[in-house]
Amino acid sequence: MSLLPSSIWTKLPGGITIPKGFNAAGIKSGLKSSGNLDLALLLAPKGSTCSGFFTESVIRANCVDLSAQRLISNQGNARAVLINSGQANACTGQRGSEDNLKATKVLADLLGLNPEEVLICSTGVIGEPIPIEKLLKSLKPLVKALSPSGGGNAANAILTTDLRKKEIALQGYLGDRCVRIGGIAKGSGMIHPNMATMLGFLTCDVRIPKDIWHAMLKRVVTCSFNSITVDGDTSTNDSFLAFSAGEHLADNYFDDLEDGLLLACQFLAKSIARDGEGANCLIEVEVQGTLSDLDARRIARTIASSSLVKTAINGDDPNWGRIIAAAGRAGVMFPLESVSLWIGPYKLMNAGEPIDFDRLEVSCYIKEKKNRDYLVGDKVKIKLIIDQYKGFGVSWGCDLSDQYVRINADYTT
Amino acid sequence: MSLLPSSIWTKLPGGITIPKGFNAAGIKSGLKSSGNLDLALLLAPKGSTCSGFFTESVIRANCVDLSAQRLISNQGNARAVLINSGQANACTGQRGSEDNLKATKVLADLLGLNPEEVLICSTGVIGEPIPIEKLLKSLKPLVKALSPSGGGNAANAILTTDLRKKEIALQGYLGDRCVRIGGIAKGSGMIHPNMATMLGFLTCDVRIPKDIWHAMLKRVVTCSFNSITVDGDTSTNDSFLAFSAGEHLADNYFDDLEDGLLLACQFLAKSIARDGEGANCLIEVEVQGTLSDLDARRIARTIASSSLVKTAINGDDPNWGRIIAAAGRAGVMFPLESVSLWIGPYKLMNAGEPIDFDRLEVSCYIKEKKNRDYLVGDKVKIKLIIDQYKGFGVSWGCDLSDQYVRINADYTT
Repeated sequence: MSLLPSSIWTKLPGGITIPKGFNAAGIKSGLKSSGNLDLALLLAPKGSTCSGFFTESVIRANCVDLSAQRLISNQGNARAVLINSGQANACTGQRGSEDNLKATKVLADLLGLNPEEVLICSTGVIGEPIPIEKLLKSLKPLVKALSPSGGGNAANAILTTDLRKKEIALQGYLGDRCVRIGGIAKGSGMIHPNMATMLGFLTCDVRIPKDIWHAMLKRVVTCSFNSITVDGDTSTNDSFLAFSAGEHLADNYFDDLEDGLLLACQFLAKSIARDGEGANCLIEVEVQGTLSDLDARRIARTIASSSLVKTAINGDDPNWGRIIAAAGRAGVMFPLESVSLWIGPYKLMNAGEPIDFDRLEVSCYIKEKKNRDYLVGDKVKIKLIIDQYKGFGVSWGCDLSDQYVRINADYTT
Repeated sequence: MSLLPSSIWTKLPGGITIPKGFNAAGIKSGLKSSGNLDLALLLAPKGSTCSGFFTESVIRANCVDLSAQRLISNQGNARAVLINSGQANACTGQRGSEDNLKATKVLADLLGLNPEEVLICSTGVIGEPIPIEKLLKSLKPLVKALSPSGGGNAANAILTTDLRKKEIALQGYLGDRCVRIGGIAKGSGMIHPNMATMLGFLTCDVRIPKDIWHAMLKRVVTCSFNSITVDGDTSTNDSFLAFSAGEHLADNYFDDLEDGLLLACQFLAKSIARDGEGANCLIEVEVQGTLSDLDARRIARTIASSSLVKTAINGDDPNWGRIIAAAGRAGVMFPLESVSLWIGPYKLMNAGEPIDFDRLEVSCYIKEKKNRDYLVGDKVKIKLIIDQYKGFGVSWGCDLSDQYVRINADYTT
């Protein structure tokens, strides 16, 4: 993992239960036909604050509506999140919303909380309701399984078509205070967040004022989860919940804290992009020199989303024409004459004109990256510099393989 | 081919040279390594009017700039179009633009025209200049090959990765006058026009005032070429040129004429979508009941563009959750409770709630369509009705197969 070299943050093993005071659990409750872990619970310490970010799709699962409403009505004072995988419980009508109320009520009673303090997230097949009896029966053993070492099981229990568990734990000293950040995420297909079928959970053992915490996370989500793409599809259930707990942090450390939150979320976001269905490598697209950061991100994301760019990388093909064509349709004005382009260390275009380059050498660079292990140097870097202004943006995606098609053609609704 | 049952227009064999007074040619000039036809010429009769529509990408090939400029400076008085396939001649700098000037100058001299009356279109690999000596040497035999029966060769000469020639000829009686419309097109990958790597040429043997002709074609292009999608990628070279020639038409027949233009362009657009790289069927998405037609088209196109919907159809999977999820992220507000959804004749959702349906039966419907021949009943229809307003829109796409990935991973830049 590449942390910023100058960062005060170091990586620890583990995930959401590394910050002090957080407990989690992940158990098998029979919701998944595979029999794998499928029910997770995160319990935050008393007095914690939660900030939530949800799908921008107009078709939202009821669990998204319920969690978003509760975060408003309880002013961020949430304590617990129940997460099931297997059924998205989206487009399931009255039954879906009743099941959510039932599940959170029973769980609140078991935890001694007000139901308003309990949130719920679901991921899986759209249109399938949760087998609610199985879920209700599992809540007692789930609460019993809560522990400060339960983060790993929770990380596993939220996965669907993911091949890898996605978790991160960071530690840093802000002054003489040891601060920890933890996170887990899931997502592999239907990933083009804003948000996409992506669930993410973050924990942190310092508290900062609610409005500042929310603003900080909003910036972080923009440059992490909302900068990745697997297939351009956005889901009904995407949610990201971030808990801040413990003693208050002095405000001169806020910038350092935000750096840590960004590192954690970018790590999780990249893990999702890299685990894109059928993918062999991460594609990182960096754009510099636009009028605004937003413009740069828009171009970067259009390139990272392009099926033709993604298949070219899959075929080890340094097809810069497709990269430029994607940049051109991003909806941002720029003159071709000001564009330079790199794949990895190789410059392929200068001031809008192609450069002679060794096609085989660049092809080998791409191929070598694709043969690396998951998140160990397996990153194909595309850099586009528009020599005009100072805007900067990065987006992450993955190559598009025939396996993507097979997985999604054969995956039953 | 399905023409509107009530239409006055009937289909004839042939393409752009069916309307009176038009000549065309297509020859082999050695631009394509395959040795296939690769150079086409369309010559319109004296006094014709041309209307042009071009890519909205900010990265445009010089031939697009040149043709667009000439149509402005000559006020639509274009007579000839030279089209080469093999090299897009985009991002080729000074050399690219000099080659275009040279080619159109030599051709104008051969045809006895002013260079301003000659347009040029290129399609093929971005970044590759045209082997200009080969092209210049071929212009004489190209002009010699011009004939009123040359439309078929021209249709073949503009193809790249297309598997099928795309041409249409219609005939209708407007009053007692026999009017003909002809068209050819190319496009298979990089198709998400606005415009995409799509070339289209239309001819018609009636004249109507230039501004009305342009306004008519603009509406037609919106509901045809700009309503299809193969892979969401837009190209540097997309162009559509429509020629009107001959005697003036009485204005009480303008609506009938527009119907014919729409039929011709929708046929060509669907031919392109159906010929999408690796595709097995056409997907037609119809959306009704939005506030505006634009909103309906936006939702239809988002569904038709969704990789997850496209792979589901490829896998014979009536995965309505993916369709609804795509509709939800189209950027158009609507309440789930007002949505009904069909695949073919099968209703899968009513008033926002799923309906019990025979999954196997719907799967067989999709499978059967995919086994049909090209443009003969091979259409999977998706219909989404939002029970609110009167907006209406249709979009066409195709399924996404593993062949798409192989074609684009292996196609050398």
